Amino acid sequence: MNSPIKEVDVIDLRVPTSDTLLGSDPFHKKPNYSVVLCHIHTGDGLTGISVNFTAGAGNDWIAHGVKDLAQLVAGRTVEEFIEDPGAFHKLLIDHHQLRWLGDGVARMAIGSIVNAMWDLWAKKENKPLWKLLVDLAPEKVVQCIDWRYLRDALTPEEALNILAQAREGAPAREAQLRQRGPKAYSTAGWLGLTDAQIIETIDAVKASGLDCFKMKVGGDLGQDRERLAFIREAIGPDALLMLDANQVWGVEEAIAHMKELVEFRPTWIEEPTARDDVLGYKRIAEALAPHNIGVACGEQVPSPVLFKQLLESGAIQFCQIDATRLGGVNDVLAVILMAAKNKTLVCPHGGGIGLCNMIRHYALWDQIAVSAHSNGQVVEYLNFLQDDVFIEPIVMAKGAYVAPTTAGWGLEMQRDFIEEHTYPTGAVWQGREESGSIKFLA
Amino acid sequence: MNSPIKEVDVIDLRVPTSDTLLGSDPFHKKPNYSVVLCHIHTGDGLTGISVNFTAGAGNDWIAHGVKDLAQLVAGRTVEEFIEDPGAFHKLLIDHHQLRWLGDGVARMAIGSIVNAMWDLWAKKENKPLWKLLVDLAPEKVVQCIDWRYLRDALTPEEALNILAQAREGAPAREAQLRQRGPKAYSTAGWLGLTDAQIIETIDAVKASGLDCFKMKVGGDLGQDRERLAFIREAIGPDALLMLDANQVWGVEEAIAHMKELVEFRPTWIEEPTARDDVLGYKRIAEALAPHNIGVACGEQVPSPVLFKQLLESGAIQFCQIDATRLGGVNDVLAVILMAAKNKTLVCPHGGGIGLCNMIRHYALWDQIAVSAHSNGQVVEYLNFLQDDVFIEPIVMAKGAYVAPTTAGWGLEMQRDFIEEHTYPTGAVWQGREESGSIKFLA
Repeated sequence: MNSPIKEVDVIDLRVPTSDTLLGSDPFHKKPNYSVVLCHIHTGDGLTGISVNFTAGAGNDWIAHGVKDLAQLVAGRTVEEFIEDPGAFHKLLIDHHQLRWLGDGVARMAIGSIVNAMWDLWAKKENKPLWKLLVDLAPEKVVQCIDWRYLRDALTPEEALNILAQAREGAPAREAQLRQRGPKAYSTAGWLGLTDAQIIETIDAVKASGLDCFKMKVGGDLGQDRERLAFIREAIGPDALLMLDANQVWGVEEAIAHMKELVEFRPTWIEEPTARDDVLGYKRIAEALAPHNIGVACGEQVPSPVLFKQLLESGAIQFCQIDATRLGGVNDVLAVILMAAKNKTLVCPHGGGIGLCNMIRHYALWDQIAVSAHSNGQVVEYLNFLQDDVFIEPIVMAKGAYVAPTTAGWGLEMQRDFIEEHTYPTGAVWQGREESGSIKFLA
Repeated sequence: MNSPIKEVDVIDLRVPTSDTLLGSDPFHKKPNYSVVLCHIHTGDGLTGISVNFTAGAGNDWIAHGVKDLAQLVAGRTVEEFIEDPGAFHKLLIDHHQLRWLGDGVARMAIGSIVNAMWDLWAKKENKPLWKLLVDLAPEKVVQCIDWRYLRDALTPEEALNILAQAREGAPAREAQLRQRGPKAYSTAGWLGLTDAQIIETIDAVKASGLDCFKMKVGGDLGQDRERLAFIREAIGPDALLMLDANQVWGVEEAIAHMKELVEFRPTWIEEPTARDDVLGYKRIAEALAPHNIGVACGEQVPSPVLFKQLLESGAIQFCQIDATRLGGVNDVLAVILMAAKNKTLVCPHGGGIGLCNMIRHYALWDQIAVSAHSNGQVVEYLNFLQDDVFIEPIVMAKGAYVAPTTAGWGLEMQRDFIEEHTYPTGAVWQGREESGSIKFLA
């Protein structure tokens, strides 16, 4: 039966997380975690869902874009998408006028539409998204990807080979990951928290079975050193410790600062500098390699072409794909395949609202069907904005994600949460509209 | 007297240029040249103006953003901007929530506000923008720039030295450029035109005194060769010939295609591949250097950090700064200074609506006060959408821009043009609203 796109419903949801400073970093001092929630309704009663995360102000910019894109896809069918997901993706990515807008807002808005279409496809097949991906023929995966700018780093033939080789042992890995899913890690050291709050967070993270911890750095060096000593002691000498600077440094500054933190044995420094500084990342990676510190980034890398360069030049050792930064599943498949070719670990970026719910699917696909292993490929996890938000919140067990079993992404939200947090009309924002807007300063 | 920002007026203007295919290229097959026209009105009766060019659909995305940013700057004063233009720029670029949106739409929208503030500053001093820039103390220029991610390629001290050295001979160069402004070049070979139309365009371009011509390439190789032979003959053996592929190729493809065009002696190949592929551009530049073909790009380079890498790695030989792609004057000053350090020629990108009107100011500043020479630094010029659009259209003489003398950018538009082209309510769009929208497909 044909499923034509009948209506695209776009909702601007914001949560006043700035009240607690959870999620704070050197730049995003008072984020209000927000999503553009997109429902694509088909004529035959199906609903595809996606979310697009932002830090608050600007959420409406993406919502505006998604509403415009909705006009472009109206009347097209889910079958047409399934028949050639690459052509559908290209219709949006290469739109002959819209393309001028570049990446950023435009590519993120495109991702909203594309990801909701994948939700519809998975629901048609009654599979969670990861399982839909795992079961796709390699040729179908290749058909999803926009190869125009990627062939010099990875050819479609190489992608087919990677996927074909990964078929060996895939059923066993799938069975294993259904028992115990991708290993998780969490942030314990938010910049805005007191020492007592950090100990509390670490204890909670430990209690959930995790043994890898991330800490925000990038303020005063002395303070970073003090807090790092404190955290390293709290987590113990064997736990993995990751650092995240959220792009606060220049290239030289990043190298100098990190050299002063070597003794705390961090596994990686995440976003040491600007999201698009390939050559800068390369120099930082080369400077820190002798100290066994890797470089990670991805949550703000705005295009597959930038990922291509970061991966092929060895500028990053940890590839932090994000669920809503790129133009949807099609783009992310390409990045995961390029990471596999370069044998770079895939450690997806989570947090926000709904990001963890989405990235678990990518981690499962990667570990079962692409890189074909789980060694060192930890997936970010943050234990907030789940239970009150999603109808089926993420389930964790023994420090690992539990593989989801319901059809699609699993992004269905609770009606109450949606109504209360719709910006600026929801109950939560009544009388405080301005604190959810661009006028709210850190 | 204090000039507080009282009102920001944002208008979505679109011109149905798709009717004629002027402006067509491999991706933008039927562009409708459009601008977001931004007027910042102050409490004491001044008006700052900026335009932000797009290819049609998506113009409203930027307009939406500029309207949101207007809330952020409301009540701030022009004096505050003049006192510390860098701090004002940072308020927008590093907004603690908006920053999540990355570049693209967000940085372009920021550019709208910033450029209108510069217009106000120039009007306060009763100088054309180029003259305001030429007269700025080097320390003031340095204060405008966000150095966070640029210091590894250019330090503020190096920038001061470049500007100080360029003071020598500056009055003479200024006098000379007031006599005959920056040399221009123009596109004669649009993809959508017939041979007869191209000859007509070349004749018109020659008649205006120009001897450099650009041609769009990137279709079928045989057709490109045929048309190039035809154009090379029409312009003569000594005229400079530039080629522009508008990002249609992958890296290998670009190299292979261009090697087949060596005999036509192109000066540069513009945008041979993706706007953000620094490593790709570098490989293309290295492959084409032995054939004396340079690489050019910039009109879609979305951040100063990407320009930094393109310049420092020798990936481009021609730096095509654009007037509305980055976050306004502050960003462009940084790029021009980095180009000067790398001795890369600055050949600004024009066309669209209002871009030529803006870039002439940058070219004048660069040639008088930064690179301090005019050799080979040609500035793009397209002779449409001037006379019926601007109150003071661009004046060309003997193939060169005439230095403007009125205060500000000189972007004041004719009231009739604004009213007729306002989208979708203007007379031009009545009954054809859809052909100006995202639904209009190539």
